[in-house]
Amino acid sequence: MARINEHYAKLPASYLFPEIGRRVRAFQAAHPDAKVIRLGIGDVTEPLAPAIVESMHAAVDELGHRETFRGYGPEQGYDFLIDAIREHDYAARGISLERDEIFVSDGSKCDSGNVQEIFALAAKVAVTDPAYPVYVDSNVMAGRAPIYLVGNEANGFQPAPPVEAVDVVYLCSPNNPTGTVCTRAQLEAWVAWARAHDALILFDAAYEAYISDPALPHSIYEIAGANECALELRSFSKRAGFTGVRCAFMVVPKAVTGAMPDGTRVALNALWARRHSTKFNGASYVVQRGAAAAYSPAGLAQTRAQIAFYMDNARLLHDGLTAAGFTVFGGVHAPYLWIRCPGGATSWQFFDRLLERAQVVGTPGAGFGPAGEGYFRLSAFNSRANIDEALARIRRMMEG
Amino acid sequence: MARINEHYAKLPASYLFPEIGRRVRAFQAAHPDAKVIRLGIGDVTEPLAPAIVESMHAAVDELGHRETFRGYGPEQGYDFLIDAIREHDYAARGISLERDEIFVSDGSKCDSGNVQEIFALAAKVAVTDPAYPVYVDSNVMAGRAPIYLVGNEANGFQPAPPVEAVDVVYLCSPNNPTGTVCTRAQLEAWVAWARAHDALILFDAAYEAYISDPALPHSIYEIAGANECALELRSFSKRAGFTGVRCAFMVVPKAVTGAMPDGTRVALNALWARRHSTKFNGASYVVQRGAAAAYSPAGLAQTRAQIAFYMDNARLLHDGLTAAGFTVFGGVHAPYLWIRCPGGATSWQFFDRLLERAQVVGTPGAGFGPAGEGYFRLSAFNSRANIDEALARIRRMMEG
Repeated sequence: MARINEHYAKLPASYLFPEIGRRVRAFQAAHPDAKVIRLGIGDVTEPLAPAIVESMHAAVDELGHRETFRGYGPEQGYDFLIDAIREHDYAARGISLERDEIFVSDGSKCDSGNVQEIFALAAKVAVTDPAYPVYVDSNVMAGRAPIYLVGNEANGFQPAPPVEAVDVVYLCSPNNPTGTVCTRAQLEAWVAWARAHDALILFDAAYEAYISDPALPHSIYEIAGANECALELRSFSKRAGFTGVRCAFMVVPKAVTGAMPDGTRVALNALWARRHSTKFNGASYVVQRGAAAAYSPAGLAQTRAQIAFYMDNARLLHDGLTAAGFTVFGGVHAPYLWIRCPGGATSWQFFDRLLERAQVVGTPGAGFGPAGEGYFRLSAFNSRANIDEALARIRRMMEG
Repeated sequence: MARINEHYAKLPASYLFPEIGRRVRAFQAAHPDAKVIRLGIGDVTEPLAPAIVESMHAAVDELGHRETFRGYGPEQGYDFLIDAIREHDYAARGISLERDEIFVSDGSKCDSGNVQEIFALAAKVAVTDPAYPVYVDSNVMAGRAPIYLVGNEANGFQPAPPVEAVDVVYLCSPNNPTGTVCTRAQLEAWVAWARAHDALILFDAAYEAYISDPALPHSIYEIAGANECALELRSFSKRAGFTGVRCAFMVVPKAVTGAMPDGTRVALNALWARRHSTKFNGASYVVQRGAAAAYSPAGLAQTRAQIAFYMDNARLLHDGLTAAGFTVFGGVHAPYLWIRCPGGATSWQFFDRLLERAQVVGTPGAGFGPAGEGYFRLSAFNSRANIDEALARIRRMMEG
């Protein structure tokens, strides 16, 4: 008898984004002429930077000729990409990483879903609430019941470290979904807590490229001691427009250890290397060449211009929504705006209202956890014309 | 305290292919002038087919323009690829599949490692021995101890279904590593057993494109009733040279069910859809366009010519090794040859001997499981010149 994983039955009935897609498709079917503006899933809209396109073309050509063909690459990623990451993302900020402390993958969704596999099933896992749903769902699927650390307006959506004992905590800064960002002092408090309690921080920095204040850390390794208690996740999705191209990486410093049942300490780097090389076969060569081109002088200039464009969108949304009477958080160092649903509406009530009355798709805060109820996420990823149009429609809706 | 997954300690010290890489690097460092020929990991060597190259270029260009840019795709894969799969791989053989019964991924290594997640931790898992190491390792990592079904010369490396109760069995045909292939009668026996015992077959058909005898099934769904008891894994790695490009798919028919602890039946399609959409974000768009081009008339002709080339290599190896005195299995409907180590050598003894005396890298049979001890896998993926040279060196080694 093929016995199935019974923990799947504990998952909410539907993953957030497929449910949004279902409701939008139903609305479009009922209103075929409606021009729906999608500020929901947080998907980029600008084309790939020319330097990246050029590099991917060259890589495709390499694979098309016997002399330059490449088959299986190193599971951990090619050195040309790993070295670009080390130099631009870390050495430039005074952080020294070895090549085999960086694991290139096909996406942060996969990394954040898979990383829990190297922890004991009995490990206590904490997530900030609201949070990216994959943190919770991947742990529920494995049979764990995560602890929620509540973010709210009183703590600026930056909950303090837990008082109870936990093994692992997921932190995301700049935060998805709230768009808020950890200050240096807040990160220092997290690292001090983790070291004091022998806990581990999974630091999701997928949106670090959207930080503009030089006083804010981009990497948790800018905090002394973090290299002993934190893994860091990064992605090319939002930084280089790779949501459909697929590339990310995770940093697993060799100094980070976990405990076996008998108390023996084991380097997480060795565990993750084993997981990565056993169940993954490397990101596509063409994709890795594209990611590396994001670090070339032209690639950096072009991708920074894209990010500046999206952040201008975020500023327009922030100011426009505030002027329309919304209470708005985030959107300054992140491409997400987190708004309080007006009139005490629930998240899904406001989702339906916004879709029906303004033909604008956002993401219900409740989809990110119980503490997200009554809030709503809008993303700054779109054309300027669509941002302007969405704001105009929302303004009319609020007036009408 | 960050408690780790203690099951990792039960894994053998090193994953097979990294260990081979380590020994080859050490040999190359000691003998920098040696021209090592790699018939080990089973990596393709022919360049991507022109039709695939053309399609990937077009896809890169699409992503480089705002009007045609695509971000997140459907997690399950684009319909243009799924429909090509349905038509060419299944409808052409009389098998009708719905779109949402096919899940496109970034590789069969990932699929075969991840699929065990949807089964209960208590599920009894059986593997044929020898087998692709990922089947065993991914289950050991999850805390399961697989049951080995021994393949040997007496049963033609095609073990019979187990007599004890099991939930899931991994079958691979054409087989990696033995290169042998299931006949229709053998597959019928497996399907009858699975239906009689409410067991599930994970059918790995990554090498089906290498079958030339029209009497042999390419898909387990050619057997009546298999759509109620089998999932099927397919890959573009060996069929279209995608080992570095990364694309595969898994078929999960809606009629296949598993049991909850209370006996409720649940469709595996729904479970896998949930797993896939929660922990994976779709294969790269550029890669999916390349995979779809493998089904165009030009792509089919070009990739079939590559496979014919590799199979000529396999025939040369089969005949040459037999003439040199080896006992050889496989290599007729699969790109792998499975040879008995001469003189009673162990697999790793023969690996070292072949590397040192012929500068040829193969794969020790023991790396595929206990029943692989005393055997050795050679792959037909290489240039004709290298195949000829490897055979000449092996012949000299055997004579010397």
